[in-house]
Amino acid sequence: MHVVITGAAGFLGQRIANSLAERGTIGDNVGKQAPISGFTLIDVAAPQFAPPNSQTRIGDVSDARFLAEAVPAESTHVIHLAAVVSGQAEADFDLGMKINVDATRALVEHLASHERQPRFVFPSSVAVFGHAPPIIEDDTATLPISSYGAQKAMSELLINDMSRKGFIDGLSVRVPTVIVRPGKPNAAASSFASSIVREPMAGEEAICPVPTSLTMWVSSPESVCKNLIHAADLATDEIGFPRMINLPGLSVQITEIINAVERAGINTGLILHQNNPSIEAIVSTWPERKNTVRANELGFKGDLDIDSIVQEYQQYALNRPNA
Amino acid sequence: MHVVITGAAGFLGQRIANSLAERGTIGDNVGKQAPISGFTLIDVAAPQFAPPNSQTRIGDVSDARFLAEAVPAESTHVIHLAAVVSGQAEADFDLGMKINVDATRALVEHLASHERQPRFVFPSSVAVFGHAPPIIEDDTATLPISSYGAQKAMSELLINDMSRKGFIDGLSVRVPTVIVRPGKPNAAASSFASSIVREPMAGEEAICPVPTSLTMWVSSPESVCKNLIHAADLATDEIGFPRMINLPGLSVQITEIINAVERAGINTGLILHQNNPSIEAIVSTWPERKNTVRANELGFKGDLDIDSIVQEYQQYALNRPNA
Repeated sequence: MHVVITGAAGFLGQRIANSLAERGTIGDNVGKQAPISGFTLIDVAAPQFAPPNSQTRIGDVSDARFLAEAVPAESTHVIHLAAVVSGQAEADFDLGMKINVDATRALVEHLASHERQPRFVFPSSVAVFGHAPPIIEDDTATLPISSYGAQKAMSELLINDMSRKGFIDGLSVRVPTVIVRPGKPNAAASSFASSIVREPMAGEEAICPVPTSLTMWVSSPESVCKNLIHAADLATDEIGFPRMINLPGLSVQITEIINAVERAGINTGLILHQNNPSIEAIVSTWPERKNTVRANELGFKGDLDIDSIVQEYQQYALNRPNA
Repeated sequence: MHVVITGAAGFLGQRIANSLAERGTIGDNVGKQAPISGFTLIDVAAPQFAPPNSQTRIGDVSDARFLAEAVPAESTHVIHLAAVVSGQAEADFDLGMKINVDATRALVEHLASHERQPRFVFPSSVAVFGHAPPIIEDDTATLPISSYGAQKAMSELLINDMSRKGFIDGLSVRVPTVIVRPGKPNAAASSFASSIVREPMAGEEAICPVPTSLTMWVSSPESVCKNLIHAADLATDEIGFPRMINLPGLSVQITEIINAVERAGINTGLILHQNNPSIEAIVSTWPERKNTVRANELGFKGDLDIDSIVQEYQQYALNRPNA
């Protein structure tokens, strides 16, 4: 088995590479675990962590020629994390299209030319929903109100159809808002949801740009990584169609996140409330809650509660004081 | 007002050009009719009919440079009929992507560069539905089981998002299966639904490749043309979001079509029943019925009954014996 990870230098990419390298195996698409013989890590910058049996390829995933050369013919699994995040895709429409649509298409079209059709794991997003009922069901329509969501939904359709045609063996998993992301704030519209935990924990101020009554559908990095690996592990026959799945998550109000930070012994006075209409305009269109029947049946798992999510990050930050 | 029609040499394009030229006006996007000063007709072949105040541009809509040169800056309305039909898109995935996705994108990206954002009317299809409940509601998810449907659904998402961003003023209308198309059978999987009326009426044999129990969501050419023109006429504010709308139609069993042909005095013994699994595989995933609340509210109209559809074609064929 040969595993390709794009966006491999990112924090999800790093965790997934680490987990898979530790485990040493991955699903063989008929339901058994098989040894991983090698990894290809792709990103625009070199990843800090790279498993011993890996090669790193530095380049732009929207460059079809680079991809064709970087993604080996023996690839059995491709986890395509490279993306332009929501805030950036909204600010720069063309860049979002280039990375979130064109690069994804170039990659799957390249994989379709391979003799063996690899499992293609595509992290889609809650943002594919916009015009939507309060509770998202497995068959709720994707009517996004953000360019990020529209681009992810377009790529989902392509991956679904190319999988139906047998060109690839793809699966789009709609990832909840990930909290708590380590590191610095990024251009994701949801970046604040990590900041309001992470920054106070480091003794720094954080801005909460949305009303505390806002409810979000969230997941811890640990759960998201496990679910992305589970998407790579699943037997093809088990998945069925359509090839887009809402991942489990937790429905939490911003107030509940702040209360959990308080309960973890952190000074929530460091959280400053400054409304930002452009962030609220994007995030408020995302779903508050999902009824993830199919994902649950397929063995995807969510988090226990918001306290365990805050504690997971607290533990992580203790172990990596520079993270 | 300047109206651009792509696929203008096709039978819908010809009818729409004719209707608009006769009427001489089109909606000005704030709810009033305004005079049409010119037309640009685009197709790979010269259209038979061209209004006096029109220019014809022969070329490939997937060629962005041709489009940029052919679509004038003063365009106020673009009706984008050029497409690869369902059977052909299923047989040639790359060609379907090139015309149904890439050409549509090249066109809307060109329009986005104009100073005034034109109304962009995009005929989408029942085929965007595949995995779907028996009755399609306005907010039913687009989970196609055909490449044609996937490609139309991808373009819908792009048009919706670019309209939300104010780059274009787009509207995708999901057209039912059009019966009765004049002329020869084409590569649309639904082509037979016209053949079983048209060919017996001309004293020729037609093949029905699906079980007569199959139910389809259909519309006459007359209704479809009127609805596409209505989509061009509608005031922008009236449309709202999302910018995809299920058009009204009739839910008819193949048996009912054949009975209507019989009632019109045609020899239905000319209809030969020869099952074709690849056609059935596509058509049977399309919806049987839609509850088109939003379209009805916006003034789109369907047909009275299957007999009036058959009679409409009978009248047409009488007037144009060579059609």
